[in-house]
Amino acid sequence: MAIGEAPLPDFYPVPGVRLGVAAAGIRKADRDDLVIMELAPGSQVAGVFTRNRFCAAPVLVAKEHLQQSAPRYLLINTGNANAGNGEQGMMDARRCCSALAEASGADAGQVLPFSTGVIGEALPVAAIEAGIPAALANLQDNNWARAASGIMTTDTRPKGATRRITLGGEPVTLSGISKGAGMIRPNMATMLAFVATDAAIAPDLLQQLVSELAEESFNRITVDGDTSTNDACVVVATGQSNAAPVTAGSPLLPVLREAMLSLLQELSQAIVRDAEGATKFVTVTVEQAATRQDALNIAYAVAESPLVKTALYACDPNWGRILAAVGRGGVDDLDVSAVAIYLDDVRIVHQGGRDPQYREAQGQAVMDRSEIGIRICLGMGTVKERVWTCDFSHEYVTINAEYRS
Amino acid sequence: MAIGEAPLPDFYPVPGVRLGVAAAGIRKADRDDLVIMELAPGSQVAGVFTRNRFCAAPVLVAKEHLQQSAPRYLLINTGNANAGNGEQGMMDARRCCSALAEASGADAGQVLPFSTGVIGEALPVAAIEAGIPAALANLQDNNWARAASGIMTTDTRPKGATRRITLGGEPVTLSGISKGAGMIRPNMATMLAFVATDAAIAPDLLQQLVSELAEESFNRITVDGDTSTNDACVVVATGQSNAAPVTAGSPLLPVLREAMLSLLQELSQAIVRDAEGATKFVTVTVEQAATRQDALNIAYAVAESPLVKTALYACDPNWGRILAAVGRGGVDDLDVSAVAIYLDDVRIVHQGGRDPQYREAQGQAVMDRSEIGIRICLGMGTVKERVWTCDFSHEYVTINAEYRS
Repeated sequence: MAIGEAPLPDFYPVPGVRLGVAAAGIRKADRDDLVIMELAPGSQVAGVFTRNRFCAAPVLVAKEHLQQSAPRYLLINTGNANAGNGEQGMMDARRCCSALAEASGADAGQVLPFSTGVIGEALPVAAIEAGIPAALANLQDNNWARAASGIMTTDTRPKGATRRITLGGEPVTLSGISKGAGMIRPNMATMLAFVATDAAIAPDLLQQLVSELAEESFNRITVDGDTSTNDACVVVATGQSNAAPVTAGSPLLPVLREAMLSLLQELSQAIVRDAEGATKFVTVTVEQAATRQDALNIAYAVAESPLVKTALYACDPNWGRILAAVGRGGVDDLDVSAVAIYLDDVRIVHQGGRDPQYREAQGQAVMDRSEIGIRICLGMGTVKERVWTCDFSHEYVTINAEYRS
Repeated sequence: MAIGEAPLPDFYPVPGVRLGVAAAGIRKADRDDLVIMELAPGSQVAGVFTRNRFCAAPVLVAKEHLQQSAPRYLLINTGNANAGNGEQGMMDARRCCSALAEASGADAGQVLPFSTGVIGEALPVAAIEAGIPAALANLQDNNWARAASGIMTTDTRPKGATRRITLGGEPVTLSGISKGAGMIRPNMATMLAFVATDAAIAPDLLQQLVSELAEESFNRITVDGDTSTNDACVVVATGQSNAAPVTAGSPLLPVLREAMLSLLQELSQAIVRDAEGATKFVTVTVEQAATRQDALNIAYAVAESPLVKTALYACDPNWGRILAAVGRGGVDDLDVSAVAIYLDDVRIVHQGGRDPQYREAQGQAVMDRSEIGIRICLGMGTVKERVWTCDFSHEYVTINAEYRS
C-alpha cells in the first residue's frame, strides 16, 4: 500500500556526482542493495544524524570521518543496519570503508558508510567487499533512479526529487533520494537521505543550512513514533556550477535555501506517502500556540495517537479522539474553551466543543479523501507548527509482524 | 481476544454498599448500561481523575460534588462519555444527578456522576432518567458482578477483585470493579474503577492512600498511550467493620495499604489483559536507573513502541526494536555499553550489544508465552519502575476502525 501515485522524476544529473549500484546479496539475492556515491574533489559535505542513543556503528564512523577529511565516497547498503552490534559493528563498518578505499584509491577516512535494514545481526562484510567492484564499475552521473531503488527496505517504491534553479543567472541543480517507511520519527535528524547540488557553499554554512532545513522537513514527519538507530541526511555541494559561491550574507542564499527546503520536504513527505500500510497522507497543523514546544507536543500527540490513526484508516470523522489527544498533549495551561479544530476547511470543534453548525456528512466528505489536513487552533499565541503523518492500518501490523520472518 | 482466563471472583459484599443495575437503552438495547452505587451515611470517598485537559463533564461535576458534601451515590453510565460537549455536557451531567437525587431523597450534590463510551455525542439524559427507578429498585449488596458488566464498553469481559483481610483481628472486606480496554494510558488517574471497603479511614488519609496507590497500579498501565477524557478511580470506605479506624500512624495502615494495592494492581492489570486485541501480557521493568523519570521514560518508550508491540504479537524475539526504543527513550546520558536486556530470564543484550551466549531459540521460547517480562538494566543507579502493557494486533486495528460504525 502507498498513498497516490509517485513516479520517480527524471533526475537532473549533478555535476561532480556519480552513482554506482550493485546487487551484492546482502540479505536477498538478485536485488540492488549496495550504492556508491562518488564525489568530485573539492565537494563539501554536511549531515544530520540520529539522536537515538543506540546510534548504529556506520553513523558513528560517518560522523568521525566527516570531521577528519573531505569525503570522496558515500557507501550505502540496505538489508542490514549494523546497529546493536557493539565493537564488532564498528570494526565491520571500518572494514567496508577500507575495502572501498583500496578499490578506488581514496583514503578509508574519505568514505562515509551508511547501513539500513534489520538491527542486531552481523553485517555481511564479505558480501559488501565482493560487491564493491561491480558498483564502482557502473559509476554514472545518471544513475540516481537505480540508486533510489538500491537503498529501499520495506519501502514499496523508490523516492527522489530533483530541481533546476538559477543562482545569479547561472543554472544550478539539486537532486536527492531518500528511503524509509517504518521506524520513522526522525529526531533532529532523518531517515536515510542523500542530496547533492553543484552549487558552491562553504562547509560551515552548508552544515547550518542542513540542520535548519531538516527541522522543517525530515524532523516534522512521523509514521510510528519510533526513532531509528540509523537516520542520516547528507547533503553534498560539489561547487561545479558556474554560480558564485553562496556565502552567509549573499542574496543567493535565500534562493538556494528555498529550493533545498522544497526538495527536502518532497523527499520527507515521500517517506510518509509510502509509510508501512498507509492509506492517508495527513498534515497536522497546530496554530495560535504560545510556544513552539507546545505546538509540537500537541501536533505529535495527535499524529501518533493510535486511536486517531485507526479512525483515519476507517475514514471515520471521530473527532472525539482528536480532542482527547489534544487534551493529553502536555500543555498544562491549555484553555479548552478556546480550542477550535478543523478537518480541511470544516470546523468540527468550536470553543472546545462540537461546532453547532457541524454536520457529520461534512466531516465524512473530508475523511473520504486520501490527503487530509487536521488543523488545531489553540487561541494562546501566534506560533504555528506542522507535522506530516499517515494512518494506521491492518497492513502496518502485517508488515511489522512479518518483517523478520 | 483477551489474555488467559479471568472469571470474575465471588465478590465479598462490602457492608454499607449496595449496587443497582439497569438496561436503560443508552446506546444499545437490552444490555446493562446504568449502575448506581449506594453508600451508607458516614462513608468516606476519595478519588483520582484524568489529567487530560479535555476533562469530561461528569468528571468535573464529580470533583465539584466531592468537595461539597459526603457522597451517597455514584451514578455510572456506559455507552456515552459526555466528553467534548461543552456547557450542554455540564448541564446534562447535573440533570442526571438531580434525577437520582429526586428519586432517592438525597441532594444532587451527594451524587457523583461517571460516564464512559463515545466522545462528542450528546448524553441521552432522558434514557438515563427513565432507567434510574429500575436501577434503584434492584439495589443489593451482592450485585458487584452485574455492576462489573454494566460499566463495560469495548471490554470483552467484566473485571473485578475482592479481598477479605483482618485489621487488628477484625474482618475487613475490599471489593472493586474496573473497566477499560482502549484509550488507556492513565495519567495520574485511571480508567473507571470503583472500590469499596468497610474499613474506617479519615478522608485526608484515604485521599493520600488512593493517590499513592494509583501511582503503583493504574498509573503504570498502557495499552495505546492515549489518556482518556473520563478516567476516574474512586475508593469508598464505609467504616462499617468493627475494626478500629485507620489513622496515619496506625500499624493497621500498612496492612490496609498492602491489601488495597494488591486489589488495585489486580484491577489495573485486568484492563491490560483485556486490552483491545491483546494476545500478550507484558511487564516492562527498568532497573538500575538514576531517576524515576528516566526509568519511566524508557519503560513507556518500550511499552508504547508500535514496532515492539507488533513484534510481540508475532512472537518474534526482535530485540533490535527493544534496543532502538531504549535508545530513543529520552535519557540523554545513557551509556549504551552498560545496558543489558532480558526476555524473562534470558539475557539477550549484554554491554549494549547482542549477548554472545544468546541463541535465538531461547528468545523464541519466551516469546511464545502469553505472559512475558522485558527487563532493561541501565547500570546508572538503583531506581526501578514497572509498566504493564500488551501487544499490538490486527484485532486492535479492527476494533478501533469499526468502533463507531
